[in-house]
Amino acid sequence: MGETVRLSGWVHRIRDHGGILFIDLRDHYGVTQVLCDPDSPAFAEVEKVRSEWCIRIDGTVKARDESLVNSKLPTGEIEVFVRDIEVLGAAKELPLIVFGDQEYPEETRLRYRYLDLRREEMQRAMTLRSDVVASMRKRMWDLNFREYQTPIITASSPEGARDFLVPSRLHPGKFYALPQAPQLFKQLIMVSGYDKYFQIAPCFRDEDPRADRSPTDFYQLDMEMSFATQQDVFDTISPVIAGVFEEFGEGAKVDDPASWPQIPYKEAALKYGTDKPDLRNPIEMQDVSEHFRGSGFAIFAKLLEQEGTEIRAIPAPTGGSRKFCDRMNAFAQKEGLPGMGYIFWRDKDGEVEAAGPLAKNIGPERTEAIRQQLGLGVGDAAFFLGGKPASFQRVAGKARDVIGEELKLTDENRFAFAWIVDFPIYEKDEETGAIDFEHNPFSMPQGGIEALESDPLAVKGFQYDLACNGYELVSGAIRNHKPELMLKAFEIAGYGEDEVKKRFSGLYNAFQYGAPPHGGCAAGIDRIVMLLAGTSNIREVIMFPMNQRAEDLMMGAPNEPSSDQLMELSLRVIPQE
Amino acid sequence: MGETVRLSGWVHRIRDHGGILFIDLRDHYGVTQVLCDPDSPAFAEVEKVRSEWCIRIDGTVKARDESLVNSKLPTGEIEVFVRDIEVLGAAKELPLIVFGDQEYPEETRLRYRYLDLRREEMQRAMTLRSDVVASMRKRMWDLNFREYQTPIITASSPEGARDFLVPSRLHPGKFYALPQAPQLFKQLIMVSGYDKYFQIAPCFRDEDPRADRSPTDFYQLDMEMSFATQQDVFDTISPVIAGVFEEFGEGAKVDDPASWPQIPYKEAALKYGTDKPDLRNPIEMQDVSEHFRGSGFAIFAKLLEQEGTEIRAIPAPTGGSRKFCDRMNAFAQKEGLPGMGYIFWRDKDGEVEAAGPLAKNIGPERTEAIRQQLGLGVGDAAFFLGGKPASFQRVAGKARDVIGEELKLTDENRFAFAWIVDFPIYEKDEETGAIDFEHNPFSMPQGGIEALESDPLAVKGFQYDLACNGYELVSGAIRNHKPELMLKAFEIAGYGEDEVKKRFSGLYNAFQYGAPPHGGCAAGIDRIVMLLAGTSNIREVIMFPMNQRAEDLMMGAPNEPSSDQLMELSLRVIPQE
Repeated sequence: MGETVRLSGWVHRIRDHGGILFIDLRDHYGVTQVLCDPDSPAFAEVEKVRSEWCIRIDGTVKARDESLVNSKLPTGEIEVFVRDIEVLGAAKELPLIVFGDQEYPEETRLRYRYLDLRREEMQRAMTLRSDVVASMRKRMWDLNFREYQTPIITASSPEGARDFLVPSRLHPGKFYALPQAPQLFKQLIMVSGYDKYFQIAPCFRDEDPRADRSPTDFYQLDMEMSFATQQDVFDTISPVIAGVFEEFGEGAKVDDPASWPQIPYKEAALKYGTDKPDLRNPIEMQDVSEHFRGSGFAIFAKLLEQEGTEIRAIPAPTGGSRKFCDRMNAFAQKEGLPGMGYIFWRDKDGEVEAAGPLAKNIGPERTEAIRQQLGLGVGDAAFFLGGKPASFQRVAGKARDVIGEELKLTDENRFAFAWIVDFPIYEKDEETGAIDFEHNPFSMPQGGIEALESDPLAVKGFQYDLACNGYELVSGAIRNHKPELMLKAFEIAGYGEDEVKKRFSGLYNAFQYGAPPHGGCAAGIDRIVMLLAGTSNIREVIMFPMNQRAEDLMMGAPNEPSSDQLMELSLRVIPQE
Repeated sequence: MGETVRLSGWVHRIRDHGGILFIDLRDHYGVTQVLCDPDSPAFAEVEKVRSEWCIRIDGTVKARDESLVNSKLPTGEIEVFVRDIEVLGAAKELPLIVFGDQEYPEETRLRYRYLDLRREEMQRAMTLRSDVVASMRKRMWDLNFREYQTPIITASSPEGARDFLVPSRLHPGKFYALPQAPQLFKQLIMVSGYDKYFQIAPCFRDEDPRADRSPTDFYQLDMEMSFATQQDVFDTISPVIAGVFEEFGEGAKVDDPASWPQIPYKEAALKYGTDKPDLRNPIEMQDVSEHFRGSGFAIFAKLLEQEGTEIRAIPAPTGGSRKFCDRMNAFAQKEGLPGMGYIFWRDKDGEVEAAGPLAKNIGPERTEAIRQQLGLGVGDAAFFLGGKPASFQRVAGKARDVIGEELKLTDENRFAFAWIVDFPIYEKDEETGAIDFEHNPFSMPQGGIEALESDPLAVKGFQYDLACNGYELVSGAIRNHKPELMLKAFEIAGYGEDEVKKRFSGLYNAFQYGAPPHGGCAAGIDRIVMLLAGTSNIREVIMFPMNQRAEDLMMGAPNEPSSDQLMELSLRVIPQE
């Protein structure tokens, strides 16, 4: 106490209390209370400052009056009496107030991002992101992975999305592309004999705008390893992900990686209606078709006569009230389905009674069999959806989420993980009947060439996702590193040998020279930080994001090139009609 | 010993010694000797394998015969007898041999980079690069800097080089640019109140090809700090750089950062003929004009009558022989100068005698005065260049290097550092007389607005480089964060207020809202790794570099876009004549 200090920072707030000026002086680490009384030689100068001016003060530290101690601040026990002040940077009238919780339109926030970023919440989100990425790196190093940088100006990579192109000046008419992901390069790194690669990698996709993704680029924790099985990849990356959630999850329960289930894709679709299930929600759907076949509920009974149809039940423990069931029915209608049939069970004179119109239609024996299968009782309900799974699955999954939340079955304070495995390699276009890759064309088919030669649509890949709380956090595969098998896999999807050799020449050629088995995955960093920050807007976790029209209004991107620039690139812009 | 092991890797070499097959099996970590005798059930299969096949073997570990122990290998005391083998990836005939030191044309190496990268030297260089970058990150974290990622798809940044442009699909006719450096964004981060930023940042410049730079992109350790003086930046980054050189310099002497000299730009030009001096070489040049003014050496005496001319001496301790002096004179002629005058001193009857034609011309008094000034003696020499410094400085600097090397004055086993400071803010175009920025337009001028208002060409900036062994490793500045001062500085270089506000609107606007003083620097990572790896070819320290025509022959970049792609981007390629 009594010592002289020099502090620099921003005027968070300034108030006049009985002639004494109180400044909350803010820097990256917090706020300090600074006072100036009319006796101070700096008073006249201090009187001029306004919010968000950047100032430097010299002053004397004093203990606060006991009644004025602010235990919420690390510096809450002291205050500093200003003796000298220097204005480092004055501020014009502010388009956005930094202190407090006032909401601003996103356009304002992005245009004045340097003010927006000063807000406490943004400071927290940005340092969180930085710390998460640092933690990922340390964890990968600890596992003896090395980070290798792969090219950003390169050739088109066949990830399925649209490339950003970069015209070449030295080669008129030719273009580079920004990588959609470093996948080809990381596979080449494996062929080059570096067995443990990772990279915090920028990925570029020219996507149409959507709220939860960046329209230009995003970051992945990308990793790949040689001589590894699927289980090796899981054993490697699971503790990294779990560790990050434990470190930054603010005490939320993080499932132990040893207990993360491996759920086949088909089972996930049946039980959860999605390949990124939220396992904080204990509800598992079941196929109850048998109970409706030939039953008095004509709609379902008729449906089941068509091939490929089924009736799926969503159990809703504690949801057994007509009011709740009607609300969920209305939800399904809002989602575009005709509705959801339901049964709920209530107590009648000490017996379990099934209620609701559907129960009446199919009678007590069938309803009881359904109740037994689903393991429900008095006070519970079940909802039913029928048809071809593709027609109702998405809504069923969503209904499961809503039921879990409304009935408070979902543990909000938990990160629940599951590996989704056994994705099919191919899918059939319902309209054209053509077979195409379901996911990634570079995954290793289970069963090898024999499997491909029998029923391709039945072939599963060594391909996997990690789901967490309803989001896909990680995606990966063991790769197909055998040239003949690669040609065969592409042939089934309609790519001739010449086309494969041309489009994927780098990788195809490399596989001719002693390619090791390898696999890996990529974790979405923006999404992990979003989950940890508790936001569903990706722009809250990116320092300088594009807006949803893929513009940076602060920096003026994109903008019109000069005619010299276009000339140098041998390009002409086609006028818009 | 005697235990069964499973090993996977590449067949480095395979030899047949008296019917027994010896394989050097290589992975990322080294080589193990593997044997297969004709009794092994795997023999027939092992016989088929060739160099660079990727295989997996099961075998029995045995101690080598004492006479066969190879102490150079970590596994040199054992060998493994093959019992089972699986070919993981066969290899076609190799365009490039992995073992040994055979040289290949760079085009071959880049086209088959996955083979080239398997070579021991490349494995070393790539892991070195990865480890250097990791070390930099750890060191910055230890200093409480956080890494923040800045946009890669953004607006043109005014670093003076040519931008790579990226056409926008959503905004026809408009283009993004890839950042030449994150400078604007790191300054905005400072204005946003994050006081310690760093990033291992990719930088993109559409440069014309040159051997020692990548034609597309390079990496920087980029850092910036608020409320910092030039000395603060030095005190922060110097230990990071020194630490990296100590960690990876393989025992070479690294000058203690506390002893790194700060040499004003003008002094560096005089003493070393360059702003990136090699201080392992103790030679310092001196101005010796006074000794030649009006002397008998007419060429120099006449020269000195013109304004702006001087005579510079390069002392050459131990260089005092006619043979050496003649060789250096020839060197200067090869570099395009008429030659270098010289004096050398020899012993004559116990007295110092100045020898050479120049000594004769100016006489003993002047030669002795020169000798005294330069602190030379018997056995030493000095070389002389005259004219306007701009006309000879480059060659003088080069001559200093050559003299240092030839006379073994330069300590090859040392990393010698110096901060070069006080760069002029402006330079004058000799032809047009126009004043333009010498370095970076965003640097803070020393002396503020008063200095700018007097003689701009005399104004120095808080702008600095770090030189090491003749290379510029780091460049940086304290930034001009005051809007009025920024306008003034640009006005002198001929940029009107409107133009500044338009071209640099992001930064200029941000400075209106309480900008803190700030500064920083960027260290060239590729160059640092080159120095540590002892190579002068940047492509030796990049995993997948472009060739010197900015092509990636392995991946086929750049290539021709489809007409659909061009259509989507509203672009047409102008046919070449």
